[in-house]
Amino acid sequence: MTNGDGWNDWLADREAAHLAELDDLLRLPSVSTDPAHATDVARTASWVAERLRAAGVPEVEVAPTDGHPAVVGRWRIADDQPTVLIYGHYDVQPPEPLDLWQTPPFEPTIRDGRIYARGSSDMKGNLLTAIQAVEALAQTHGAPPINVTFLVEGEEEIGSPNLAPLISRERERLACDFAVSADGGQYGPDTPSLTVSLKGLTGGQLDVQTGTTDLHSGMYGATAPNAVQTLARLLATFHDADGRVAVDGFYDDVRDLSPDERAEIAAVPFDEADYRRQAGVETFWGEPGYSPLERAWTRPTVDLNGVWGGFQGDGSKTVTPCQAHAKITCRLVANQDPAKIQDLLRRHVEAHCPPGTTATYTPLPGSARPFEIARDHPGLIAAGRVLEGLFGKDPIVIRSGGTIPVTAMFQELLGVETVMFAWSVPGSQAHAPNEWYRIEDFLRGRRGYAAFLTALAR
Amino acid sequence: MTNGDGWNDWLADREAAHLAELDDLLRLPSVSTDPAHATDVARTASWVAERLRAAGVPEVEVAPTDGHPAVVGRWRIADDQPTVLIYGHYDVQPPEPLDLWQTPPFEPTIRDGRIYARGSSDMKGNLLTAIQAVEALAQTHGAPPINVTFLVEGEEEIGSPNLAPLISRERERLACDFAVSADGGQYGPDTPSLTVSLKGLTGGQLDVQTGTTDLHSGMYGATAPNAVQTLARLLATFHDADGRVAVDGFYDDVRDLSPDERAEIAAVPFDEADYRRQAGVETFWGEPGYSPLERAWTRPTVDLNGVWGGFQGDGSKTVTPCQAHAKITCRLVANQDPAKIQDLLRRHVEAHCPPGTTATYTPLPGSARPFEIARDHPGLIAAGRVLEGLFGKDPIVIRSGGTIPVTAMFQELLGVETVMFAWSVPGSQAHAPNEWYRIEDFLRGRRGYAAFLTALAR
Repeated sequence: MTNGDGWNDWLADREAAHLAELDDLLRLPSVSTDPAHATDVARTASWVAERLRAAGVPEVEVAPTDGHPAVVGRWRIADDQPTVLIYGHYDVQPPEPLDLWQTPPFEPTIRDGRIYARGSSDMKGNLLTAIQAVEALAQTHGAPPINVTFLVEGEEEIGSPNLAPLISRERERLACDFAVSADGGQYGPDTPSLTVSLKGLTGGQLDVQTGTTDLHSGMYGATAPNAVQTLARLLATFHDADGRVAVDGFYDDVRDLSPDERAEIAAVPFDEADYRRQAGVETFWGEPGYSPLERAWTRPTVDLNGVWGGFQGDGSKTVTPCQAHAKITCRLVANQDPAKIQDLLRRHVEAHCPPGTTATYTPLPGSARPFEIARDHPGLIAAGRVLEGLFGKDPIVIRSGGTIPVTAMFQELLGVETVMFAWSVPGSQAHAPNEWYRIEDFLRGRRGYAAFLTALAR
Repeated sequence: MTNGDGWNDWLADREAAHLAELDDLLRLPSVSTDPAHATDVARTASWVAERLRAAGVPEVEVAPTDGHPAVVGRWRIADDQPTVLIYGHYDVQPPEPLDLWQTPPFEPTIRDGRIYARGSSDMKGNLLTAIQAVEALAQTHGAPPINVTFLVEGEEEIGSPNLAPLISRERERLACDFAVSADGGQYGPDTPSLTVSLKGLTGGQLDVQTGTTDLHSGMYGATAPNAVQTLARLLATFHDADGRVAVDGFYDDVRDLSPDERAEIAAVPFDEADYRRQAGVETFWGEPGYSPLERAWTRPTVDLNGVWGGFQGDGSKTVTPCQAHAKITCRLVANQDPAKIQDLLRRHVEAHCPPGTTATYTPLPGSARPFEIARDHPGLIAAGRVLEGLFGKDPIVIRSGGTIPVTAMFQELLGVETVMFAWSVPGSQAHAPNEWYRIEDFLRGRRGYAAFLTALAR
């Protein structure tokens, strides 16, 4: 790796200051799903806009949506240079359950080379590496070497319900050669990687109603339907005993893996015991006929995210509950269509609802198509070269079981692919208590973005 | 019915005065579950003690417990006469939601021959009928014809947590030939009834743990066990598809109904459509091979009272939950043993817990044995004769799916059976807004208790 024409030294001099900025950003509880945090979300949008302006980005706007605002920043330097759209999000998952955090989720704490806070891995750290890299290039050369557009949304953790309308409306200002997602990560701390596919997402809520009122279990437990029991039996129909999804038609559009793809996945370093340890589970579970990594990367799922109904307090309450509820999401793979899957889920619930009770499946916002990028995409090739320089080894080809809905939107609305270029590592407790992000990845990530933007210049 | 050797006239002369006493008692908001009403509960205990003394009961004590006090009253008249223990409670359910009451819950109001107030049906009216009857007998004959003990607790509505220790401690003073529960009622306003069995109760909490932390469903949904799914599948194993309990050994000790018992139950007036309407359900559910009334009265159940785990908020959260929980209770019938059933539940959970996950069943306090009284019990026979005289028709034989833990305590601690002898009727909104009690039942109930105690004399 070169010294980066000055930006490398500039970044090296600012490690403490940049970490302090990360600390500032992580203290903002930008929980997009919780209306009580609406003001915090708005403050975080302002913080990001200010940070872009401070980096030198000339056109910065907090762009309103029907939900939380996005931040758009544009720096056009020349028509004959490529334009990349750097995507990120400033919102975070809810921190609950709070009692499982070793240190408070919005009081960043550094332990053993990691910064612990909600949003550290997903993705405030990654977001800052891109902004600080653009600033480094600007400070050392007056401007970045290519045209750069930032699009930082505030609703990724609730499924980006208002991002597509924004992208449609701003299609001209967001036009680019390709997008770069700063949301994502590497395969391992010492294993750089190029991501070639992501899963899609769709889901909803299942509400079971068995009567008009909770009943006394002594008077009615033997004769009246029980909503908790009805729901449990219904939820148990979504998979067969082996773990295969039992929703009729669910696998119809799924393309099976080619021998080459299976070989590519089998070649990826994967320590099953280590994976289980990281996940905190004793055993694997899931669809038979596929390796755990094949399942995680290429097989669709129906995930039961939550359930509630009836008495949940201390002690006993002898009630026959009349209502029970569940949250369900599906991870989808090419070529599954979210709308078609929603329809299959709805039909499955109808088909398995016992007579005399009501089970209603209501789709929730936040569907996303699965994503794939071609192996010869110029952005992917450039990213590979930068990673090789940054890590001193060739990146491996990977996929992700996660969903970045914006990749499908960029394909559909802007006609561009997305290169994943980010630094989070597995096991970092994204969406869980005690989320963390490695300081080393943060500091190196800034250099990665500076090198990547430089490598894209004609 | 005879004129009752004078007590009948004496009671007839005091209808207005006795109704005024009921009004007084119903004005005391003895809500045992609410610490804000602790003083009211204590005042009500004193009121009951004073009323017993005024009735002539020579030994009356407000007996302290670890919670609200009980009132014990004893009137020993002769060693060669039987002794009955009249059980009741002076506490009431909370009145909330207040806005659904047509008149305030603690301002008794008479409309259409009913007195509306919290505690009217459950069970201050019934309690007074027994006390006023004893007074009538004493006023007309100097003393009741048999030995009478009153035990009036203040914690029935919170599960009688301190009653068993009190009965144990006072075993000698509470010794009796049998108990009489003034808490209960008749099958209908014009349908006198004798209750010959009650269900028992036992239960616990089921905790499923599939890992050490909630996981990102995109990263781990296809490979890691999901606690909500594991729990749902586990809960679905407690019953077969038809509604029969599928816990191994659950029915082993259950005595099947004899043809005579089935005929007895079939003869009970029972309107299925009306029952469903009262319950607010569209359909019956439960163990096949038995009528709804047979199930409600004689078949044991496993009731899923509540469930919770994972994400329960608005919108979606793409989490693979590591914990999920359920509350389970069982209604038991003769000759099921709560301790044995707890063991079967625990074993069932162990047997159906998938490998690599943890499912723990923890028993909760509050078990009660099922209750049965022999048809030839002298107290039951006497009660039947009195009801026939009071209503002008033979009582029907009924059972209850509910549990009255005190019946099991009397069996275990005092070695005696309990005769249910009380006046409330179905639909009287016990535990609900606008609770009521029929004036006619109150006035007649006093005569019923006087006749019952008289009939028991040797």
